[in-house]
Amino acid sequence: MSIRPGTSTTLPTTGPFSPAAHLERMRSTAPLVQCITNHVVTNITANVLLAQGASPAMVDIPVEAGLFARIASGLLINLGTPTSEQRDAAREAAVAASEAGTPWVLDPVAIGALPVRTELARELVAMRPSVIRGNPSEILALAGAGAGGRGVDSVAGADDALEAARMLARTHGSIVAVSGAVDLVTDGERVARLANGTELLTLITGGGCALGATIAAYLSVAHDGDFFEATVAAVTNYTVAAEVAAGVVAEVAAEATRGAGPGSFAVAFIDALHALDAATVVDRAVRS
Amino acid sequence: MSIRPGTSTTLPTTGPFSPAAHLERMRSTAPLVQCITNHVVTNITANVLLAQGASPAMVDIPVEAGLFARIASGLLINLGTPTSEQRDAAREAAVAASEAGTPWVLDPVAIGALPVRTELARELVAMRPSVIRGNPSEILALAGAGAGGRGVDSVAGADDALEAARMLARTHGSIVAVSGAVDLVTDGERVARLANGTELLTLITGGGCALGATIAAYLSVAHDGDFFEATVAAVTNYTVAAEVAAGVVAEVAAEATRGAGPGSFAVAFIDALHALDAATVVDRAVRS
Amino acid sequence: MSIRPGTSTTLPTTGPFSPAAHLERMRSTAPLVQCITNHVVTNITANVLLAQGASPAMVDIPVEAGLFARIASGLLINLGTPTSEQRDAAREAAVAASEAGTPWVLDPVAIGALPVRTELARELVAMRPSVIRGNPSEILALAGAGAGGRGVDSVAGADDALEAARMLARTHGSIVAVSGAVDLVTDGERVARLANGTELLTLITGGGCALGATIAAYLSVAHDGDFFEATVAAVTNYTVAAEVAAGVVAEVAAEATRGAGPGSFAVAFIDALHALDAATVVDRAVRS
Repeated sequence: MSIRPGTSTTLPTTGPFSPAAHLERMRSTAPLVQCITNHVVTNITANVLLAQGASPAMVDIPVEAGLFARIASGLLINLGTPTSEQRDAAREAAVAASEAGTPWVLDPVAIGALPVRTELARELVAMRPSVIRGNPSEILALAGAGAGGRGVDSVAGADDALEAARMLARTHGSIVAVSGAVDLVTDGERVARLANGTELLTLITGGGCALGATIAAYLSVAHDGDFFEATVAAVTNYTVAAEVAAGVVAEVAAEATRGAGPGSFAVAFIDALHALDAATVVDRAVRS
Repeated sequence: MSIRPGTSTTLPTTGPFSPAAHLERMRSTAPLVQCITNHVVTNITANVLLAQGASPAMVDIPVEAGLFARIASGLLINLGTPTSEQRDAAREAAVAASEAGTPWVLDPVAIGALPVRTELARELVAMRPSVIRGNPSEILALAGAGAGGRGVDSVAGADDALEAARMLARTHGSIVAVSGAVDLVTDGERVARLANGTELLTLITGGGCALGATIAAYLSVAHDGDFFEATVAAVTNYTVAAEVAAGVVAEVAAEATRGAGPGSFAVAFIDALHALDAATVVDRAVRS
Repeated sequence: MSIRPGTSTTLPTTGPFSPAAHLERMRSTAPLVQCITNHVVTNITANVLLAQGASPAMVDIPVEAGLFARIASGLLINLGTPTSEQRDAAREAAVAASEAGTPWVLDPVAIGALPVRTELARELVAMRPSVIRGNPSEILALAGAGAGGRGVDSVAGADDALEAARMLARTHGSIVAVSGAVDLVTDGERVARLANGTELLTLITGGGCALGATIAAYLSVAHDGDFFEATVAAVTNYTVAAEVAAGVVAEVAAEATRGAGPGSFAVAFIDALHALDAATVVDRAVRS
């Protein structure tokens, strides 16, 4: 596959780089994913990982966080509610992960206007995370090109953050994933546009945060160290499961002549992540 | 509408003060609601806000909490698990909200027998929260008229706390909302008795705490600065949605000949908050 | 009933020591259960307690934790995410509970490789908890006989930890409950092998942690101070409800020709705990 810089890539539907192959490797290896994440989403994050066959470990206090990052299969650092202890834990875990070769994901939640997390995010990004995941506002803020959004919601579209994402990727040697109606993944040269998903995913808290943990899990089953394709696989499989769940919700609503919304979706999404198989991924995965 | 002090008011079913009009303003403005709340209910609180069209932001660490309270549409301070950092965050957020004119809600969870939160609640109430929300035991304890309940459960009925609530309202210029089988809302003069709801709401954790966040959201869409009617609207719409959800649970149980209880209710409640429309509110809202 | 040391006991199906009688006492007394637990599972833990008729109170900060442990019906100390404040709270609550005669449960989550919690667990176990609950790896690590597992997952079977459990029980005067496909409960002499449950319980986060809180609730309704039978009752009733929920999930999947997995199970489990009755327990409880 010859790739021109900045050009959209095609999605491998078979072979070891495909989302389906990543899915099967995740199921068979049950990676141990350390999460230093915000207290709003710890529960759904753990359940999302368990549903996919990974093993969550929320080891987020100083001393332990660094030790654990050396043995974990992957690490997520999410800055959603960064208490003092979590900030120290994040720093030592990032150092340990880098030293031990543990792949790690930085999710710079709501940076920009909020100074404590913004300073920490800049410190951490300089440590070259394997992947940076955020919404467009967060990616723009991390690249120094925007003032951030309003909390976890973004005021920009994913494409508005594409150049910032590519710059971040090249500067820090990271893969950058930008959330949106179409998700973008880039390594600075390659750009994947992933068009699966459902708006319901934005109506439950943790929809983005748990994707960060999912990416950390998928990095541990990357083929040939290709974190770009592992991130593409994580986003693809996660958003395909979300689509399946949205279909279940619509079906329930139709059958039962009663409303079915984000509450039902959250349940169906965990079910769908657990039930997801390679055939469904191959059938539904879309790159635009 | 002429109002005699202490007399029950009637529920406006149309016009800008009505619950239905508040609902529509909330959907159209998507208020940004800062929550400094306990770690038991952060997830359901965020999902309850998202389902209603609001945007949750759990910004609860020192430095950031004060800054964010200046730009948030509304603020909730809930004392359920008040760590040292949250206490500092709560103090600075209350100051900032007061200075910036951001409406804010104080939920003095389980005060009375527990000294750390009780002292903080007394400090915060002196800063004149827009709304104080609690169960009867908490309102009695805050008014100095009771020793508090057992944890988050109340040992008194809402009417037992009516005089304490009116006193608190007059002293601090706050609206006071007291939870119970019939919910009370008072500004010290006006008293609304709101008779919607379901006992299932007491069987899921966060049923009361997430109402506090909902009130914070509704304050930002008050008409003519009337926080009394905004609080009435919040309680009414929230408890009407709970009734709808209880109906769904009963229907599932009947159809499927299997138990359906608080687990199903929690899911149906998020669905119902999301699906709630003005017609349902007008049809079902009850003041006793 | 004559009991030989180390011999399996039979399950009393009637009378005050039976799981069914414990269930009825829990429903009628609504015990107040203090939980100092990790931030991943606070929500499900509170909902599991509420569904069973208990009243949860997550009082986990210094000063308050010790005071509350004197008035609570039961106490859980779970070391899943032991922040500095929680560690102090745990120490003072354990002291206060011991002094006041409040029964308490220690859940030494993920000890072994993680030094902060391991040191704290050794300190707490010396204070003679009423019950120690863990997976085999944790029980082995607490007994000094193993290096611990990988996070919350165990690398050993329950029987591998039986001798360690009996040793811990005899040394500290505690009941020890070991999770597994067959759960073990021992007081050092008596051993109960409990064979209810479903693998789905391992696919939702907090399945084990919320059992620890459930045991704390059941200790408060022990008959004649028999914490062995109270723990047996807690494990039996909890895992029977899990089986019922697994049946609901299977039924939904069959009816609706769509996947139903851990998301649906978590909902059905709360429903089943709420609906559980003595007849179901008598009918389904199994000791192997």
